[in-house]
Amino acid sequence: MKFSYVSHLHCPKCNQKYDAREKQQLCECGSPLLVAYHLDELKKEFTPELLTKREANLWRYHEILPVEHEENVVSLGEGMTPLIAMPRIGEDMSISNLYMKDEGIIPSGSFKARGAAVGVSKAKELGIEELAMPTNGNAGASWALYAARAGIKSSIVMPVNAPKITRNECAVSGSNLYLVNGLISDAGKIIGQAVNDFSLYDASTLKEPYRIEGKKTMGLEIAEQLNWEMPDVILYPTGGGVGLIGIYKALTELQYLGWINGRLPRLVAVQAAGCAPIVKAWEEGKSVSEFWPDSSTIAFGINVPKALGDFLVLDAIYKTEGCAIAIEDQSLLAEQQKIAAIEGAFICPEGASTFVAARQLREKGWIKDGEKVITLNTGAGIKYPDTVQVEVPILQPGDRIRKNTNSLSKK
Amino acid sequence: MKFSYVSHLHCPKCNQKYDAREKQQLCECGSPLLVAYHLDELKKEFTPELLTKREANLWRYHEILPVEHEENVVSLGEGMTPLIAMPRIGEDMSISNLYMKDEGIIPSGSFKARGAAVGVSKAKELGIEELAMPTNGNAGASWALYAARAGIKSSIVMPVNAPKITRNECAVSGSNLYLVNGLISDAGKIIGQAVNDFSLYDASTLKEPYRIEGKKTMGLEIAEQLNWEMPDVILYPTGGGVGLIGIYKALTELQYLGWINGRLPRLVAVQAAGCAPIVKAWEEGKSVSEFWPDSSTIAFGINVPKALGDFLVLDAIYKTEGCAIAIEDQSLLAEQQKIAAIEGAFICPEGASTFVAARQLREKGWIKDGEKVITLNTGAGIKYPDTVQVEVPILQPGDRIRKNTNSLSKK
Repeated sequence: MKFSYVSHLHCPKCNQKYDAREKQQLCECGSPLLVAYHLDELKKEFTPELLTKREANLWRYHEILPVEHEENVVSLGEGMTPLIAMPRIGEDMSISNLYMKDEGIIPSGSFKARGAAVGVSKAKELGIEELAMPTNGNAGASWALYAARAGIKSSIVMPVNAPKITRNECAVSGSNLYLVNGLISDAGKIIGQAVNDFSLYDASTLKEPYRIEGKKTMGLEIAEQLNWEMPDVILYPTGGGVGLIGIYKALTELQYLGWINGRLPRLVAVQAAGCAPIVKAWEEGKSVSEFWPDSSTIAFGINVPKALGDFLVLDAIYKTEGCAIAIEDQSLLAEQQKIAAIEGAFICPEGASTFVAARQLREKGWIKDGEKVITLNTGAGIKYPDTVQVEVPILQPGDRIRKNTNSLSKK
Repeated sequence: MKFSYVSHLHCPKCNQKYDAREKQQLCECGSPLLVAYHLDELKKEFTPELLTKREANLWRYHEILPVEHEENVVSLGEGMTPLIAMPRIGEDMSISNLYMKDEGIIPSGSFKARGAAVGVSKAKELGIEELAMPTNGNAGASWALYAARAGIKSSIVMPVNAPKITRNECAVSGSNLYLVNGLISDAGKIIGQAVNDFSLYDASTLKEPYRIEGKKTMGLEIAEQLNWEMPDVILYPTGGGVGLIGIYKALTELQYLGWINGRLPRLVAVQAAGCAPIVKAWEEGKSVSEFWPDSSTIAFGINVPKALGDFLVLDAIYKTEGCAIAIEDQSLLAEQQKIAAIEGAFICPEGASTFVAARQLREKGWIKDGEKVITLNTGAGIKYPDTVQVEVPILQPGDRIRKNTNSLSKK
């Protein structure tokens, strides 16, 4: 068997094909490119049993990843993150089968590590020496670190308001880092200029075709962790939407291979009320979104006013009979605290938004009794210390403490 | 087969036995207690092949963990952290077989999650309703979160200088949290008083017997990840030393089961130059350490002036022909940056100390050519943002960036 069954790249808008052995960015028509595999060939040889003895990271699915030569794999052990039962918060929202895929348990503390691992590995295979990208923080951190491991130089621009810890990650990796007084769209323009000026590889969201393939492994893992039985609903915090596009792509590939059967899960794009272009488009039945002016949310990773792959996100929602929903910041912050206090999981604000969405969709009856529901937490809460208000009494040596009178932790 | 083959508790100092089905703290003689298993019985039934189909977390070793009933397991998916090749930093220090066990990739971002998962699960099984502990930050964070998941109340006291993010983790979990103007030893005295005043379960390091069992799984995983072939050296950042004690215990249990053969790896206790009681005791050939006055180091997790289990740490070092070594703060900070810049791993200062130790022990010839060496990174660098100096240029929208002229990322 080959290490990878990658075939070529194709454009989902105009169907043009491209060679996956050469550096590619967007299609000539401006659309992101998708990776195609020799699935018919693979179908004859590849079985779930082959996976059981492989290491617990995303490279266990190397046949349907784009890296052709194993020596180009740049890995920090990313993937096979836990799928954790959330019975107490589930009971609190009357969802008896609630699980969280915890993407905080991964190098660099966010799901962006998946896209970076696969994207940087393929960049290495293609001989890329220097890449550049705008970021809301976490993606830049992951790409800077994986690029360092690959010996690839990086230039990163992020908004001044992006989570501060992600600056440290970029800086410590030796990246050429800048802040911009503006949004990720402003950072994107500066990177676009640099890509032209210095002939860099543009690693912006969806401007290279391989990040989706890394994100897709979330879908592969969910399927494997549920023993190839599909859940009913998957809720995903949606900024650029690459993870949702990737999960949908993964599940359709597994369908084609015959590893999963029946209906795909309904995919839910969760956005912040202060930046909800996909929700607006979905509510209006449109196939593309419009730029969301003056966007703002504490869930910084989903502050993306216009996503390049919006049409792919909306397509995945329509095809799976999913939906899109916007959440207020105050609701997701309250949910974040509740989840920590009764489930012991300190998750990021973006992840917390998917729990609020599940709660609201259950109240509306859109999620039905007994359905299996998966929320996606995209990062560790420890990357967002400012979302938790901490007022702690300070003692002198020899002082005494009060008895714990907190009642929230009781079952 | 039974879920656990736990037999009883025993004192390594005076050999007294205790019932593992009742709440126990220290031995009457003041020593920590260790957990014993029915290894003879287990030896007949338990094989490495049984593990292959189990989930990639520490509960895959449940037969040699102390929780008797699976329903008491309190888990956030902890364990089976990556064992990552570090070829470039290895080459830089002339160690051709260098690997890092990365304990940053775990719930709460530090190896303390292991002790908390097993300790809290066993506390739940014993019917504990409220626990208390002093902490240098990470242990308190992990125990507060796992206790919240178990529905157990917690009270935590940590030094004001402990890493700030660990305050957030305790606070968000609903713990009864205090800071103290002092060291962990001052926090310990306050907790001791509260344990007496309010009849709490004392979860201080080694004052309950089960944290070691959680930490021991690092040794089990290293053995399994190396296909039951022992490495030559394991370097461990040593404060309380529970992980080193646990790894040694794990390896002797695996020896008894016949799963590993030959010499055990030489265990190295790595301490900070500003707090090195174990190193001093080892250099003097002693079996216990003395209180280290005015201790200070940026590697906060190993700022422990006198460890309750010092005699067990020293015993493990002597028995495996290991050693103890102290590292200056400035060396470990420089190493932390170098590791991120050439290996892409942003690790904690405590973890970085083990790389400096490996470098120095190789220079001295104590680590020999071709030996397989494992460093233990005990936590994610993102929990310690203050260890990285970040000065980043701020742009206005429309500005241009400079070309990346960094040379460190070159191979």
